[in-house]
Amino acid sequence: MKLADLVQSADWKAEKHVPVIEAPDKVKAGEKVTVEVCVGKEIAHPNTTEHHIRWIKLYFKPDNSKFAYEIAAFEFSAHGESVEGANKGPVYSEPVGKAVVKLSASGTFVAEAYCNIHGLWEGSKGVSIEE
Amino acid sequence: MKLADLVQSADWKAEKHVPVIEAPDKVKAGEKVTVEVCVGKEIAHPNTTEHHIRWIKLYFKPDNSKFAYEIAAFEFSAHGESVEGANKGPVYSEPVGKAVVKLSASGTFVAEAYCNIHGLWEGSKGVSIEE
Amino acid sequence: MKLADLVQSADWKAEKHVPVIEAPDKVKAGEKVTVEVCVGKEIAHPNTTEHHIRWIKLYFKPDNSKFAYEIAAFEFSAHGESVEGANKGPVYSEPVGKAVVKLSASGTFVAEAYCNIHGLWEGSKGVSIEE
Amino acid sequence: MKLADLVQSADWKAEKHVPVIEAPDKVKAGEKVTVEVCVGKEIAHPNTTEHHIRWIKLYFKPDNSKFAYEIAAFEFSAHGESVEGANKGPVYSEPVGKAVVKLSASGTFVAEAYCNIHGLWEGSKGVSIEE
Ligand SMILES: [Fe+3]
Ligand SMILES: [Fe+3]
Ligand SMILES: [Fe+3]
Ligand SMILES: [Fe+3]
Repeated sequence: MKLADLVQSADWKAEKHVPVIEAPDKVKAGEKVTVEVCVGKEIAHPNTTEHHIRWIKLYFKPDNSKFAYEIAAFEFSAHGESVEGANKGPVYSEPVGKAVVKLSASGTFVAEAYCNIHGLWEGSKGVSIEE
Repeated sequence: MKLADLVQSADWKAEKHVPVIEAPDKVKAGEKVTVEVCVGKEIAHPNTTEHHIRWIKLYFKPDNSKFAYEIAAFEFSAHGESVEGANKGPVYSEPVGKAVVKLSASGTFVAEAYCNIHGLWEGSKGVSIEE
Repeated sequence: MKLADLVQSADWKAEKHVPVIEAPDKVKAGEKVTVEVCVGKEIAHPNTTEHHIRWIKLYFKPDNSKFAYEIAAFEFSAHGESVEGANKGPVYSEPVGKAVVKLSASGTFVAEAYCNIHGLWEGSKGVSIEE
Repeated sequence: MKLADLVQSADWKAEKHVPVIEAPDKVKAGEKVTVEVCVGKEIAHPNTTEHHIRWIKLYFKPDNSKFAYEIAAFEFSAHGESVEGANKGPVYSEPVGKAVVKLSASGTFVAEAYCNIHGLWEGSKGVSIEE
């Protein structure tokens, strides 16, 4: 069994688990660029103690390299748990993250998201270095 | 020895390691609120393979509870490492994070940041629920 | 408010949240040494979807340095959640971790543990380099 | 581009990046079982500030479910970095982890490891519930 067998993909407009990456299509080498990632952009995912998005990881695969780099990991830790019981707590974290990155190669951003009951989901977006 | 002995604090305008929290002073209960955290707001921290901010964690301590909640953890994973050697890689992650949270109690955000050679640093900011 | 105000300590024989560190008192410089950490050594902590130990972090503070190093972080991710509902899932992670480290200075291990409803707890243990 | 395109696999006896999972082939439902994971079991992987294993994640895919669960994540945080420069620091974390789990379904453990310059690698191992 491969990790590929564990990771699901779909159209994020129809499937609430798919991570969406928002970043420019073209960036200048070495310039700070904001990359936003989220789950549930079109259809909100539940956020309860029992069912929630736990994390999103963001990778970068340069076109000219066979190895991918991890850019960032975002953990969403609070989902209404409390000593009074599930969903009575004072804080919920939504599945939204932001990275600020400097790139010097064209390539692809790949996001991986984890729902605590529906497993792993992925999305991707290309990015080019402007001449 | 206590964790408190490991965590340093200072004025973030003078000390580049201190995490800064940007959030509204008042929020409505249950409303989505954006909390931005970063290190190096006034004086940039180095971002090299050998020296960088590795992560920031964001906690929330409600006024009416003795226990704190972890809201989010942000890992900054890429710092120019590559098979060609240190600081020759195609991607750098800057120490900037964003959480979207829903709160139902007044309290304090506490951010903890980790520099891989200068250890742990903290900052905090209060937040109130609007009546 | 300081992180110190969020972190609780107690005798681990009487308080089930306190992380316990098991490591040799003396080690040879550069030799691989196993450090075990756990929560609930004497009194088991609950492990349910609603209440569980989420993570333990292990730090090292060398005697001759003012900065602490993070050695490892252990995330305990599965707590019986499932599409059938809370505590019906097929896997639970217990709050037990192990690091293999090489040290070249005497100092103190500090462990920090997080319960999703009872917040942050700490424990520590000294270690010396053998001449 | 898919996450599958980023994750490499190989025979761990010949390739030093492949995570190895050591666990019983058969377990009793609900019984605590130790699962050890490591990288470099046969051929050690470098552990330097510039090149090291950063983390291993351990997943479980039950045979009777289409969704995978994350069991644990192990971060190896210290790699000789220090204020004196790369590889002069007092602590190194080796890429070894241990989870203690309770299972109630047969399935497959999948480990994912990340080298900071050679990217993502995977390994797997089946486990059955004893009648
Ligand atoms: Fe879900
Ligand atoms: Fe620093
Ligand atoms: Fe607890
Ligand atoms: Fe490598």
